[in-house]
Amino acid sequence: MATRHIVKRTIERADPDAIAGLGDAGTATVHEAIGRRGYLGPELRPIQQGTKVGGSAVTVRSHPGDNIMIHAAVEVCQPGDILVVTNTAPSTHGMFGDLLASSFMARGVVGLVMDAGVRDTMDLRAMGFCVWTRHISCEGTVKNTPGSVNVPISINGVIVEPGDVVCADDDGVVAVPRSEAAWALEQSNARLANEEQARARLQAGELGLDMSGLRQKLVDIGVEWIE
Amino acid sequence: MATRHIVKRTIERADPDAIAGLGDAGTATVHEAIGRRGYLGPELRPIQQGTKVGGSAVTVRSHPGDNIMIHAAVEVCQPGDILVVTNTAPSTHGMFGDLLASSFMARGVVGLVMDAGVRDTMDLRAMGFCVWTRHISCEGTVKNTPGSVNVPISINGVIVEPGDVVCADDDGVVAVPRSEAAWALEQSNARLANEEQARARLQAGELGLDMSGLRQKLVDIGVEWIE
Amino acid sequence: MATRHIVKRTIERADPDAIAGLGDAGTATVHEAIGRRGYLGPELRPIQQGTKVGGSAVTVRSHPGDNIMIHAAVEVCQPGDILVVTNTAPSTHGMFGDLLASSFMARGVVGLVMDAGVRDTMDLRAMGFCVWTRHISCEGTVKNTPGSVNVPISINGVIVEPGDVVCADDDGVVAVPRSEAAWALEQSNARLANEEQARARLQAGELGLDMSGLRQKLVDIGVEWIE
Amino acid sequence: MATRHIVKRTIERADPDAIAGLGDAGTATVHEAIGRRGYLGPELRPIQQGTKVGGSAVTVRSHPGDNIMIHAAVEVCQPGDILVVTNTAPSTHGMFGDLLASSFMARGVVGLVMDAGVRDTMDLRAMGFCVWTRHISCEGTVKNTPGSVNVPISINGVIVEPGDVVCADDDGVVAVPRSEAAWALEQSNARLANEEQARARLQAGELGLDMSGLRQKLVDIGVEWIE
Amino acid sequence: MATRHIVKRTIERADPDAIAGLGDAGTATVHEAIGRRGYLGPELRPIQQGTKVGGSAVTVRSHPGDNIMIHAAVEVCQPGDILVVTNTAPSTHGMFGDLLASSFMARGVVGLVMDAGVRDTMDLRAMGFCVWTRHISCEGTVKNTPGSVNVPISINGVIVEPGDVVCADDDGVVAVPRSEAAWALEQSNARLANEEQARARLQAGELGLDMSGLRQKLVDIGVEWIE
Amino acid sequence: MATRHIVKRTIERADPDAIAGLGDAGTATVHEAIGRRGYLGPELRPIQQGTKVGGSAVTVRSHPGDNIMIHAAVEVCQPGDILVVTNTAPSTHGMFGDLLASSFMARGVVGLVMDAGVRDTMDLRAMGFCVWTRHISCEGTVKNTPGSVNVPISINGVIVEPGDVVCADDDGVVAVPRSEAAWALEQSNARLANEEQARARLQAGELGLDMSGLRQKLVDIGVEWIE
Repeated sequence: MATRHIVKRTIERADPDAIAGLGDAGTATVHEAIGRRGYLGPELRPIQQGTKVGGSAVTVRSHPGDNIMIHAAVEVCQPGDILVVTNTAPSTHGMFGDLLASSFMARGVVGLVMDAGVRDTMDLRAMGFCVWTRHISCEGTVKNTPGSVNVPISINGVIVEPGDVVCADDDGVVAVPRSEAAWALEQSNARLANEEQARARLQAGELGLDMSGLRQKLVDIGVEWIE
Repeated sequence: MATRHIVKRTIERADPDAIAGLGDAGTATVHEAIGRRGYLGPELRPIQQGTKVGGSAVTVRSHPGDNIMIHAAVEVCQPGDILVVTNTAPSTHGMFGDLLASSFMARGVVGLVMDAGVRDTMDLRAMGFCVWTRHISCEGTVKNTPGSVNVPISINGVIVEPGDVVCADDDGVVAVPRSEAAWALEQSNARLANEEQARARLQAGELGLDMSGLRQKLVDIGVEWIE
Repeated sequence: MATRHIVKRTIERADPDAIAGLGDAGTATVHEAIGRRGYLGPELRPIQQGTKVGGSAVTVRSHPGDNIMIHAAVEVCQPGDILVVTNTAPSTHGMFGDLLASSFMARGVVGLVMDAGVRDTMDLRAMGFCVWTRHISCEGTVKNTPGSVNVPISINGVIVEPGDVVCADDDGVVAVPRSEAAWALEQSNARLANEEQARARLQAGELGLDMSGLRQKLVDIGVEWIE
Repeated sequence: MATRHIVKRTIERADPDAIAGLGDAGTATVHEAIGRRGYLGPELRPIQQGTKVGGSAVTVRSHPGDNIMIHAAVEVCQPGDILVVTNTAPSTHGMFGDLLASSFMARGVVGLVMDAGVRDTMDLRAMGFCVWTRHISCEGTVKNTPGSVNVPISINGVIVEPGDVVCADDDGVVAVPRSEAAWALEQSNARLANEEQARARLQAGELGLDMSGLRQKLVDIGVEWIE
Repeated sequence: MATRHIVKRTIERADPDAIAGLGDAGTATVHEAIGRRGYLGPELRPIQQGTKVGGSAVTVRSHPGDNIMIHAAVEVCQPGDILVVTNTAPSTHGMFGDLLASSFMARGVVGLVMDAGVRDTMDLRAMGFCVWTRHISCEGTVKNTPGSVNVPISINGVIVEPGDVVCADDDGVVAVPRSEAAWALEQSNARLANEEQARARLQAGELGLDMSGLRQKLVDIGVEWIE
Repeated sequence: MATRHIVKRTIERADPDAIAGLGDAGTATVHEAIGRRGYLGPELRPIQQGTKVGGSAVTVRSHPGDNIMIHAAVEVCQPGDILVVTNTAPSTHGMFGDLLASSFMARGVVGLVMDAGVRDTMDLRAMGFCVWTRHISCEGTVKNTPGSVNVPISINGVIVEPGDVVCADDDGVVAVPRSEAAWALEQSNARLANEEQARARLQAGELGLDMSGLRQKLVDIGVEWIE
């Protein structure tokens, strides 16, 4: 039962259309649609603006200040994957830069979610490689200590399994369990349709209080109106 | 004397010209001009760049993770207002998104100051709805727990009363007591005029040390020059 | 032996070509090239995007909330200098704004590294004065308490001596000891050349694992591949 | 209308019995009893353990790193007062130590609430002077910049007026508006009586779910029990 | 596949002797023994000093600022359990106090691990109810929003399943998967035996460098000794 | 000029009586006496209470999550030394525990200052080994990456050279340059004598305002007294 450090070569992925659809729906919609779950937290910020992506999670668990396992992850990636990297303890290191990005882009990887730091951000933006990260830091790493690729990891209380669908945009990153991808898309699309209607009415000046029955709710929980 | 949860419908607002003038003067000028007061702190950051606004504060105090009181605030807003939201405890939730923005824009509200999180930031930027916020987060909220609208609130040690003038730009947010608006504008304009003159002299190479008598002050407090 | 507050007028600077070369090489390259040293940490962020600079450090140590020593620093600066400011305790104040920037620009100073806050960021961007800072804050300062100019300071565990070379870009700020500037540039250029070759091979799909002998290293440290 | 720096010599205080009763009731009880208000936040921690106090707030607003206004506050204090200190910006300085404590104890002041740092904590504990503080720091201060004594201040979103009742214990600090002191004590005592009864039943194994009707509430909000 | 809020009444627990043994071994030993895993992070601190416990995890996932699910957890607990509470977003609330402790103690629950805040800490210490918590805060909660009991949760990147073994002491909290409890105890005991021997030799002045072959390792990684 | 990883075996130390005297004087006194310098910041907290020590700094610079260099430091220590450990990037790891403490105690080392984490705190307190640390964490480390022993390091902007005098107590840690030790003790003793007198007068009710001429200073900086 001893702890092992592994690289799992093969993982299941969700249906490509579901992945694309969830990426397009955006994190706020998907997170709400699946029951307000899956959000990886406000600390993971994009280094670019105005980008939305969906992809399949290839997961990495590293030792802080050591990026050897990210190198190990390259060859298990496929087009449409998103790399999701955590550490066994907090790290501010720039664990990923333009050379690694070149390598992952050559495999068709569409982005990176990094629970530590990245560097060469000027180059990464120029290359069009999307990144969500906790830190930006030019501080380099060593390549000494083992970790694992494609094991379950956790960020911000959310468990991410290899092959889960990762959606990311300017609001952050959301993970959807692979087995729920189709359902999540359906829920998201329903939600988008509803919002479309609501938006038009709200823009016309109708009140959310009245449209959603919230006025009565306010009364029920004891809110009073005064002049 | 029991605590009540209220929505106050009517508030006094400052003179529209003073509000516009203070917005144009910018936060650094206004904050200095009124005696280095009113700054809501460096944690409240804009989601857009290059925008300056002034408006009248409509205040909200919410339970963390619950945005029902923001819905309640819509109908008490008027054109030129800025919504200022706090919570009874720290919250990272995305309490405000594009649907609420549609509703507030329909009322003429010019911006949001959020001491928690917002979402749909891509849409909010596209809509031109200005936001200053502590967090960006797609995490959604519930609508269960009462709070209040248009009560005195406090952010970063600064008390904000409903109807106070809120100025916001790339440096953050400053609140000016409503009753001081005219005086604050006068002070700000005087300061801007002085700075205009100083800027020209500094650009010409004159030293602030000499222009402001600081060289003698340095001597008085014991600073020595060495080679 | 009593503590003195001093302004040191004259400092040694590195060779201008070395400074320019290190600025162009970028922080990630320089930091790695000199042995993963000199990084001032991820908390110091640029207020602009896409800028790379190199310069000679003029250092300031201030009392929190007091910028009199920054005024004192103006006249000891030369074209090509970068001002590096620390405080004797943490400060969020906006210790530097557009008027000071006018003054430093008139002296040819190319940028500011601030371990506290700056303000007038909209103006600073418009003026093209580069800034890396811990905070953005419109909060103003007083001019009462002595400090020093051109003494050794320290940020994030890195000691910065007056005249050291400061490189800064979107990844942060790196300080190179003045006496190592020529060597650092040589190391950086060698590294850039190597990276150029590696980039081409990685973009062609070759694996870093194989190019760098990391596959064997993974085996040696006990990593196993599974399906 | 210019900003003034003032020391207000005379303030109203609440009834001494109400102050003592609120101190004894403890912060959790008082905070709940008055409608979950008045808590100054988890960052303010006691330097001693097992102490409960109540007192009248004498408030100080200082410049960071400067304690001249604390010195100014001594002579406006009366027996039973608690000093409450904030700064115009965050500060980690040890603004208060054993000499100041000697001075305040000579006036009968029962404790200190410090939204910055204190020092000489070993001595303060030995002297029996109670302190709640954000930081412990030996870093000293200057005496250069004006502030005010007995003006309204705010910590953690709670407004504290001079003369308000301050309760503090191992759970932190709660402020009660002076005019609500008698009512707050009444509410607190009622709550304590209820809790006494509840405690006995809970210790006997009765379930809170059944005692408080929460089981039905859980059903109503959609919670399901499974094996 | 819609998200459900559940209370799972029955969970598997590890062997009581293994649980007791792991509690006695202490967190540092257990964490190392199972491969440096399972540590819930330095933010979770004990409110008491000098206590070591082991127990079976009963898990709770709550809405921030709402403790209704903790009430729901009481009746599914058994003697020897430890309650482990997380929230769907960060919370500083005091979600647990002496009344809840009375209830859980009546069920034989030995402690609480709280990824938010607790209150009544003076009483909790007096009662001998052990607590590890992120915050201490008297701030109360509401009882409005559903969550779950005995579902997998995650703290600090560690996944905790209901029935996992939780060890806690002055160094923090470690979770051991239930199925690994016996093996973990074996590994821990072997480690303790080794440490006992090492301790004696180190106390006698023998060097760890020599005992563990680290001197050669230092040479291998390029460390040089100088005078 | 390439970066080297070194262990410097021999360092100069200050006079033992000066070290002892500075330890006894306490951090607040020493820090003030030498001109408000040398404080390593409020983040470094003691794991014990009521202890004051002075010692000679043996410095370590480690890779995060790796404690091999601490092992390397043992044999360069002498009785009366204090180990001061930093990392090349922030780390929360428990880099030091009871086995290392046994080893250092066998060498006569009197304490540890750790800019990361320690573990086995229950044992360390029982052994009487004094520790000031940023984190308490049971998380273990590897032994793979080189660093240095007895090189200049920096914590919180303070440069610590090997052999500098380190004073630590409940208020934190202060470093005094070795060459200033005798002067620092003299200044500290003068300060303590002054404070002794001041304390008696303050306890007798005399006002600091009057004793120190601060009343006039308040007038000069524009403070007004009102009723």
